[in-house]
Amino acid sequence: MGLLVQKFGGTSVGTVERIHAVASRCANARAAGHDVVVIVSAMAGETNRLLALGQQMASRPDPRELDALAATGEQVTAALLALALSGKGLRARSFLGHQVKILTDSAFSKARIKAVEADRIYRALADGAVAVVAGFQGVDDAGNITTLGRGGSDTSAVAIAAAIGAEVCEIYTDVEGVFTADPGICPSARKVDKISYEEMLELASLGAKVLQIRSVEVAMKYAVPVHVRSSFSDATGTLVTAEDRDLESVVVSGVTYDRNAAKITLANVPDTPGTAARIFEALADSSISVDMIIQNIATDGHTDLTFTISKADAAHSQEIVTRLAEDIGATGVRLDLDVVKVSIVGLGMRSHAGIAARMFRILATEGINIQAISTSEIKVSCLVASKYTELAVRALHEAFGLGKPTEES
Amino acid sequence: MGLLVQKFGGTSVGTVERIHAVASRCANARAAGHDVVVIVSAMAGETNRLLALGQQMASRPDPRELDALAATGEQVTAALLALALSGKGLRARSFLGHQVKILTDSAFSKARIKAVEADRIYRALADGAVAVVAGFQGVDDAGNITTLGRGGSDTSAVAIAAAIGAEVCEIYTDVEGVFTADPGICPSARKVDKISYEEMLELASLGAKVLQIRSVEVAMKYAVPVHVRSSFSDATGTLVTAEDRDLESVVVSGVTYDRNAAKITLANVPDTPGTAARIFEALADSSISVDMIIQNIATDGHTDLTFTISKADAAHSQEIVTRLAEDIGATGVRLDLDVVKVSIVGLGMRSHAGIAARMFRILATEGINIQAISTSEIKVSCLVASKYTELAVRALHEAFGLGKPTEES
Repeated sequence: MGLLVQKFGGTSVGTVERIHAVASRCANARAAGHDVVVIVSAMAGETNRLLALGQQMASRPDPRELDALAATGEQVTAALLALALSGKGLRARSFLGHQVKILTDSAFSKARIKAVEADRIYRALADGAVAVVAGFQGVDDAGNITTLGRGGSDTSAVAIAAAIGAEVCEIYTDVEGVFTADPGICPSARKVDKISYEEMLELASLGAKVLQIRSVEVAMKYAVPVHVRSSFSDATGTLVTAEDRDLESVVVSGVTYDRNAAKITLANVPDTPGTAARIFEALADSSISVDMIIQNIATDGHTDLTFTISKADAAHSQEIVTRLAEDIGATGVRLDLDVVKVSIVGLGMRSHAGIAARMFRILATEGINIQAISTSEIKVSCLVASKYTELAVRALHEAFGLGKPTEES
Repeated sequence: MGLLVQKFGGTSVGTVERIHAVASRCANARAAGHDVVVIVSAMAGETNRLLALGQQMASRPDPRELDALAATGEQVTAALLALALSGKGLRARSFLGHQVKILTDSAFSKARIKAVEADRIYRALADGAVAVVAGFQGVDDAGNITTLGRGGSDTSAVAIAAAIGAEVCEIYTDVEGVFTADPGICPSARKVDKISYEEMLELASLGAKVLQIRSVEVAMKYAVPVHVRSSFSDATGTLVTAEDRDLESVVVSGVTYDRNAAKITLANVPDTPGTAARIFEALADSSISVDMIIQNIATDGHTDLTFTISKADAAHSQEIVTRLAEDIGATGVRLDLDVVKVSIVGLGMRSHAGIAARMFRILATEGINIQAISTSEIKVSCLVASKYTELAVRALHEAFGLGKPTEES
């Protein structure tokens, strides 16, 4: 008998039949006595269809108009779900971003939520209705329609859950929850029952792709419990929540990998002050995010400088660095797209020494050469040749005992 | 160098290519120095597709949600056209009903415009931009999205033209203008250069289908000149405007027909006071509009009562009347769907006697039996067997000299 936010992604509302199934799930929650707010994405494929249409109209489409265009996808689903709910005898009302309203900045296509004014949602709930809210969209101060970027409906859901003080924000998706590793390459991967916001942030940014990373940041900021679960079963999924003693006891929560990394090595860089700064400033000026950086120890006043960027930025980065290389006096720029970043994540690392060393040893035992390393408080990442992806993930998953049920570990 | 409203219907924006063509037309108007406001319909077929989806969700869909659903069609076109315009180097901004805003009552699916607040349109124009407005939609006092009913974009266009004092409201459609008769069945039909609001109202309500009838009412009320023309050519179309002496000189402006009529005859109705009232009250209670009514002269205290309704109301009307017939003491109810209403329309009728008689004579000469008659100040309609449709239209068109160019008549 609480206040529930349920969010359904594009696959979960991909057909008329699935929307009916979503309506049944909401009806069950209502029948159990909950007040229910539902956030929906566009039907699978619809956002791409709309944006493809937009791309056919102009070579450099105005982002304001692309947002107005793309926002229709969620509007359609919200209305269809409200209709399906009323078809089951429930009261239901759909709301768009500007109706709720979800106030954002004016950064079209990647707007950030500034405030959620939930009066209309409260009134709908007080009226005994299910409030169905179009995800992904908001409105700026000037009344323009904005969108929150890919996966933005997760953020819509968590922000609304925070604004109305929901007990839990359920994110229904096409997987059963967060796994200790990608089940596609690691058959012994196990669903995690509970994970901390911090770990989820590391997993999401590393490519676990279950939740939009910004939604996790918002959830953490407002302490909204997020339950990631499958829309195709009634099984409990993964609860993303604040850390507790129970979570601390697990040293490593998951193994993840990110194929989106590219490596650039600049050979024979003169080891003079300010050289590295020049290179990374030039990249920053082009809005390129650099991930890992390694500089070897200088021999005879020269050193090799290696860094990683996303594959999408690889060509552009190579161009920038090649232009600088001559100026700097470096002798060559090498781009390597054939790399993967494998990471272990776990809150317990903070209180357990030697986890990184253990990871390096496990990889060495398998004959996997480590090309770069980066660490955070709760994560260790190693860049390795991409052919080792599956081997590295399986070996780490096994060695850190992730395949076994928690009780036995 | 004036302020121009251009409205493009579903066929005119039915594909990406056609939207580009519409953008070119707007660009020409801008190049000629005009300020331009464009109103667009949904791409052809889109509204039907959306409503069909809605119908699959609930057996009695909530009209509020159907409106939110259907309104996305125009939103997509408006954004696409704004993109196409900016692709041609023009400034352009799309606006939805709630952004303009177009304030309506809350009669979902058939809302009426209460006011147009055009500040944002003015600001866009002052900014040198083409304002692209999604037709068909508005917003009610509570912020709900409403739609104006089929053909509602015509009304959006005329209402906006009235609000901003546009010089002319151009309605681009898939025909070249208003014709003296349906060119499909009357090869000598001629495009009319100019027609009065009053005549257009009669033609529209009789099935000419070029303009939504409510848009003509709004145009007449606010004296907005409406130019109906083809989006596929540069030819001048038909100007719908206030009557002037020039218009008066034409006795009959057009011949039209309406296949949507159905006839019900109630035999042997006792000729007592209140009997007719009982029947027509019962129909009115079911929101059925009765068009023509004929009551024969009573013989031995009984009479036949004939009336027409739309084909959509035929079955329901028959049911109601059959239920009443016994009560009343009538002996039978006959429904005839095989009828058509043929009409002549013309401002000049007001000052010319004998036009109706001439119409009856023309039909009689062709051996066409008249089953019912109704007249207004500028219209005479005859109900005839539907097999005579083409013959009746052609004969009237010829006999009233409509095929010849105006100068020679």
